[in-house]
Amino acid sequence: MIASAPGKVIVFGEHSVVYGKHAVVSAIDLRCYVKAEKSGEVRITSSFGTTGYDFAGKHAYISHAIRRFSEVCEVGGVEVEVRSDIPPASGLGSSAAVTVATLGALNAEFNAGLGREEIFELARKVELDVQGIGSGTDPFVSTFGGSWVLPEKRRFHTDLEFEVIDSGETSVTAEMVRRVRELRDAYPDVILPVLDAMDAIAVRGAEALERNDIAEVSRLFRMNQSLLRAIGVSTPEIDRIVARVEEAGYSAKITGAGGGGCVLTTGMGEMRISLSAEGVRVEDFEDWGSADN
Amino acid sequence: MIASAPGKVIVFGEHSVVYGKHAVVSAIDLRCYVKAEKSGEVRITSSFGTTGYDFAGKHAYISHAIRRFSEVCEVGGVEVEVRSDIPPASGLGSSAAVTVATLGALNAEFNAGLGREEIFELARKVELDVQGIGSGTDPFVSTFGGSWVLPEKRRFHTDLEFEVIDSGETSVTAEMVRRVRELRDAYPDVILPVLDAMDAIAVRGAEALERNDIAEVSRLFRMNQSLLRAIGVSTPEIDRIVARVEEAGYSAKITGAGGGGCVLTTGMGEMRISLSAEGVRVEDFEDWGSADN
Repeated sequence: MIASAPGKVIVFGEHSVVYGKHAVVSAIDLRCYVKAEKSGEVRITSSFGTTGYDFAGKHAYISHAIRRFSEVCEVGGVEVEVRSDIPPASGLGSSAAVTVATLGALNAEFNAGLGREEIFELARKVELDVQGIGSGTDPFVSTFGGSWVLPEKRRFHTDLEFEVIDSGETSVTAEMVRRVRELRDAYPDVILPVLDAMDAIAVRGAEALERNDIAEVSRLFRMNQSLLRAIGVSTPEIDRIVARVEEAGYSAKITGAGGGGCVLTTGMGEMRISLSAEGVRVEDFEDWGSADN
Repeated sequence: MIASAPGKVIVFGEHSVVYGKHAVVSAIDLRCYVKAEKSGEVRITSSFGTTGYDFAGKHAYISHAIRRFSEVCEVGGVEVEVRSDIPPASGLGSSAAVTVATLGALNAEFNAGLGREEIFELARKVELDVQGIGSGTDPFVSTFGGSWVLPEKRRFHTDLEFEVIDSGETSVTAEMVRRVRELRDAYPDVILPVLDAMDAIAVRGAEALERNDIAEVSRLFRMNQSLLRAIGVSTPEIDRIVARVEEAGYSAKITGAGGGGCVLTTGMGEMRISLSAEGVRVEDFEDWGSADN
């Protein structure tokens, strides 16, 4: 069976959400597709190659997803194949999407009958298995789809669209989350107020998105990006992208963990994304021939 | 008589100091020289040209300084001539230096017997006359010289030197102070915590300067620059300068009001500056022939 799950953008509140602050996140119209077929062994195929269980390597999320799933449902063996629209390590939630899509495909293939809440709980465990720390945001959005204010999980709608520029630099979430934690521990008097300011931006940002107020979103993007820079998750390359976008009258910010990855903009982007995409779902095609990617 | 007064750098805490937060400022080895000679009329000559009283134009600070001085000491008329090492509108305190040097020269020429405290008070009034608002920091440092933690006015010493890059853009203090106030009024929940974070950086910065810890100063520069960007006083050009300096392993921040002006760096600069220069003083040369500029 084939299942798919969406990538996400964090529109406001990346990093601060780890410390209980508000964030605004949305599923996007880029998806990861996973086919699971019962087999005598575990075999994982993606654009990174083919492996068996590979807990510490290129198939860490998928391997942990199979293991976590097998705790609730007997899995003799399975062949898993991945096709993803979501650029990896870009801050667009590719890891969570492949995790959730894998769980969705296993759930369908093995008739486990898990609901979305249970899929989310397993995906959340996989995130912790691989990263050690993490907010649970990405698995949540990839599982349920839509646009959300966290941590209260208030669903909302916006008609605004955004654009994305890939910095070309790799973003490693666990590493960036760790660095911010170290910075907070070393400079609490500086970083804690910055996290508070990010919280206020996220609350205002959700309101601005809901009333489709792009001018206000743009102002909040600028402030949020500067604060992300203050906590050490921007790069000189991203700073230059942001300067170029701002000179053209738009605004831009990191989306996701930073240190590279994608920049979310109100214009001048390489790729347009729409928000509020559907969460994990079983696809009604049986093989890749019908997939739209 | 000729008097001179130094320019200044704000090492930490520009803008936040307006709201009662800590700042670290130092007089630098770039000076403004002013010659005052009794005359039948008021005549002001600088690189901007020659005028009489010119309260709203290019000699606003000098004109207000003569007027404020004449409130405490009869001035029939005076010829004032200015030669300054300090680039104007660069965030290096050229306005305060010309004000303080003018007051120092008038004090000497008219034997008014004012002490530094009284010169500072007059210079502070001139700043408000011209700008409407202002922290009093620049006149204070230009008058007394040295390195200081504000607002407690604790004098300290550092052996660290810095470099300066001129962004080529004009910085207008009053305009930038007004913009930050508007931003604070519109987004208090975002900006007030940012000002608190700047305060913590300034307190840490003074300690790091005192123990000549350039690595720590560099880390604090990065954070402070990001927060200055958050309150809207950076520019795309400054962002690119900062990115270039950071890529070379140094760090950089706006010094002064921003929106242009000079960038203070730990390396890659166009001009080296030393700190803790002497405050306002009467020069022992009688004419420009002996001035070292």
